[in-house]
Amino acid sequence: MSREIKTVAIVGAGVIGAGWAARCLHRGINVVVTDVTAAAERGLREVIANAEPALANLSLAPRRKKGTLSFTTNLAEAVAQADFVQENAPEREDLKRNLLAEISKHVGPEVIIASSSSGLLPTRIQADCIRPERVLIGHPFNPVYLLPLVEVLGGEKTEERYITEAMAFYTSIGMHALKVRKEIEGYISDRLQEALWRETLHMVAEGVATTDEIDQAIIYGPGLRWAFMGTCLTFHLAGGEQGMRHMLEQFGPALQLPWTKLKAPELTDQLIDRMVEGTQEQSKGYSIRDLEQLRDNCLVSIMQSLRTFNYASGRTLKEDDERQYQETNGSTEWSPSDDLSRPLELHSDKVHPEWVDYNGHMTESRYLQVFGDASDALYRYVGVNDVYHAQGNSYYTVETHIYNVKEVAAQAPLKVTTQLLGLDNKRLHFVHNLYHAKDNTLLATGEQMVLHVDTAAGRACPAKPEVLEILQKIMDAHTTLPQPEYRSREMAVPPAKG
Amino acid sequence: MSREIKTVAIVGAGVIGAGWAARCLHRGINVVVTDVTAAAERGLREVIANAEPALANLSLAPRRKKGTLSFTTNLAEAVAQADFVQENAPEREDLKRNLLAEISKHVGPEVIIASSSSGLLPTRIQADCIRPERVLIGHPFNPVYLLPLVEVLGGEKTEERYITEAMAFYTSIGMHALKVRKEIEGYISDRLQEALWRETLHMVAEGVATTDEIDQAIIYGPGLRWAFMGTCLTFHLAGGEQGMRHMLEQFGPALQLPWTKLKAPELTDQLIDRMVEGTQEQSKGYSIRDLEQLRDNCLVSIMQSLRTFNYASGRTLKEDDERQYQETNGSTEWSPSDDLSRPLELHSDKVHPEWVDYNGHMTESRYLQVFGDASDALYRYVGVNDVYHAQGNSYYTVETHIYNVKEVAAQAPLKVTTQLLGLDNKRLHFVHNLYHAKDNTLLATGEQMVLHVDTAAGRACPAKPEVLEILQKIMDAHTTLPQPEYRSREMAVPPAKG
Repeated sequence: MSREIKTVAIVGAGVIGAGWAARCLHRGINVVVTDVTAAAERGLREVIANAEPALANLSLAPRRKKGTLSFTTNLAEAVAQADFVQENAPEREDLKRNLLAEISKHVGPEVIIASSSSGLLPTRIQADCIRPERVLIGHPFNPVYLLPLVEVLGGEKTEERYITEAMAFYTSIGMHALKVRKEIEGYISDRLQEALWRETLHMVAEGVATTDEIDQAIIYGPGLRWAFMGTCLTFHLAGGEQGMRHMLEQFGPALQLPWTKLKAPELTDQLIDRMVEGTQEQSKGYSIRDLEQLRDNCLVSIMQSLRTFNYASGRTLKEDDERQYQETNGSTEWSPSDDLSRPLELHSDKVHPEWVDYNGHMTESRYLQVFGDASDALYRYVGVNDVYHAQGNSYYTVETHIYNVKEVAAQAPLKVTTQLLGLDNKRLHFVHNLYHAKDNTLLATGEQMVLHVDTAAGRACPAKPEVLEILQKIMDAHTTLPQPEYRSREMAVPPAKG
Repeated sequence: MSREIKTVAIVGAGVIGAGWAARCLHRGINVVVTDVTAAAERGLREVIANAEPALANLSLAPRRKKGTLSFTTNLAEAVAQADFVQENAPEREDLKRNLLAEISKHVGPEVIIASSSSGLLPTRIQADCIRPERVLIGHPFNPVYLLPLVEVLGGEKTEERYITEAMAFYTSIGMHALKVRKEIEGYISDRLQEALWRETLHMVAEGVATTDEIDQAIIYGPGLRWAFMGTCLTFHLAGGEQGMRHMLEQFGPALQLPWTKLKAPELTDQLIDRMVEGTQEQSKGYSIRDLEQLRDNCLVSIMQSLRTFNYASGRTLKEDDERQYQETNGSTEWSPSDDLSRPLELHSDKVHPEWVDYNGHMTESRYLQVFGDASDALYRYVGVNDVYHAQGNSYYTVETHIYNVKEVAAQAPLKVTTQLLGLDNKRLHFVHNLYHAKDNTLLATGEQMVLHVDTAAGRACPAKPEVLEILQKIMDAHTTLPQPEYRSREMAVPPAKG
């Protein structure tokens, strides 16, 4: 970047302007916001405050000192201080054209004036500016402080070096700058969004579906792919081994059907070639199978993220898991016929692809996650299940001792055995051994001391008799097992009193 | 569900048919696949094998025994065994119409015949069937074994009870069944997808953008939202405090602009009311601020998932983090002026929303994740950074001892202090204390023994002199600090040999 940008002026303090402010401030850039109404300042500060937790969570990089924020209703004063101006006025050509011209009177000659317009032509809105060559579009997406995309394009009078400079600035604040090479209404992203939006409006107008049904039709299906794979690459994969060309052969005829109100262009040989060559270029270096694997890993990981929030497809997944737990509950609960003469084997898993670090090995904290899952399986086995939790009791971990014995790679099958080491009516002491499930190599051991608690009161209390009864049976059987050599001397249940 | 479905016949073994087979098999349902070409069996088995790791990773529920798979080119034989038939032939009306009629001759009267059609009218393709009342559409999305959405609708002759039964079956295999209430070409989801797809084809045909640029315009922006929030609710939020009504006022005029080739319907009062009422119904029970928070949490979590795979916006995030690390590197590396007379304070974080369990507390394995991040900060501080790793050396954790002192809730600020307990040229022994950063409550301690390794050879080796020199300075200073009372007796560096 040719010049350092220390202060950005944000013109217009709505949802988009406030989002730009939050993103810049978090990056240590000073921000001057201006709006015609003084009342806009309240909403601005609210958006910035609400953005803070998400911004703090997003990056793993060291925090930096925040930029300073100021607000004024005086446009000239605001932009005069700025190294870069971002305009966010309502989407009306006349309004933006006048506003940009006004801004251009009060800034230095090299200061870039970027408009957040969602689709107006830069040639038209830059027309009345002083030095229109530094006026361009930088079109962001809501929430601006999180979504990386910004579309950058100039009008007829815009000089290329300002496009380059603006793209470098946007990249420096964590964005993905996409250069729109041809000036067109709606640019690229909003042409796609707008087509989908207008089809939505048609369906609602004709009573085909409600807004909720239309949203469902996206978020449980195509939308999950769109988070990381666009329609072109997705359809390339849907074509199977022959990719896009097969896809166009198979679904080409459907382009003539009234599957949307939008008429398709003619599927000429040139268009087919462009689609095929484009998607081949996109998938260069990956086989179809590689891409499928990547797509599947991303989908699994996204749905698991959403499960944490019990929302959208994450809720489907959670409810489905709970149903399956119920159906199979019998098989993971203690039964009198169970052989307790060996360590329990209640949990198995695989090294999920997203569990590995840059060395390709299972990352440290995932060992504890697997041990935690194995402890949960033990609790369910002895009757400490969802019903028990709902009654206000649970086991909490007090202490954990992990020995890492051997590295393990992605997709390796895992199994855990569990041996009880100590028990009283409040305390439970056990050790998990984590094995590679195929070759039985010991990968790690996890010794834990857990305490039975009254969760509401937040203090220890005796476990229920029916749970203790099963635990005692296991404990009695496990007492005869060899004690692990790595057993920690400090971790022990004290002998019962009196 | 009225009847248990033990065997499903899959007609057509392409990408969609094979996806259905993988989903059903994983649920313990027996699957008979039929296709006109025997060669299809190879591709079928490949898809099923490739689906397995993703399916195994997706669910946390106990594994169940897989169903059995068989393949035959004999259609009649395949469907005669089935309790449910799913047809996946190419998207041609005449072909599907004849095929469904043929299937209907060989199955029992109550067996549902579902077509995976992406948009053909069920009334037309059921026309020649025996008992057309059990013929319906069950439209899935690729990859069928992962994406939950299935659109369900019947034709004029379909009876409601079969729709209900099919939806229950799809739900039982982990899907989100969306009932399409009005029979229309393209149903709901493909009308939306198709509008976006045809706009894509227009842009490629007119040389506006490449397939890659078009995909970028989705995956770095709107696509990230679509993974969990559809256009209607998204635009409701974009309208700020007044929601959809404000949004329609602001962007209503843009509906007249050529932002897509698709003409919008007239924005009548009735349409506005339906959009506003629909999105109000969708957001019932949430304030705009709640929804924004949920949206932000989901976005952060999805982008962090994608970072693991270094793909799409996950790559943007990773590269940006690395740039920030470099920019701020100086501040986290040891400098001669540093005060070493107290424990080091090198890492801080917050309890991310997705780190909490159903009790609202930070989940067990996240403690180790924070300690791992603190260890990484210590390594960078003493010069064990990316450059050092690239030269084939690293510290690996051998042993970890965690004491859980106090629960901590979502969003709580965290800080970690680090005290060195032991050092030789291969071993490093330290303890992290995790505190609530505001009130300085001790939350947990994490004692670790780590070993310096030659990563390629996979064995211990001495750390480089420049690293040991800094570590020794810290060790000398920390020897005078009070030793933690919880220090584990077994975890100690043995005294240096004679």
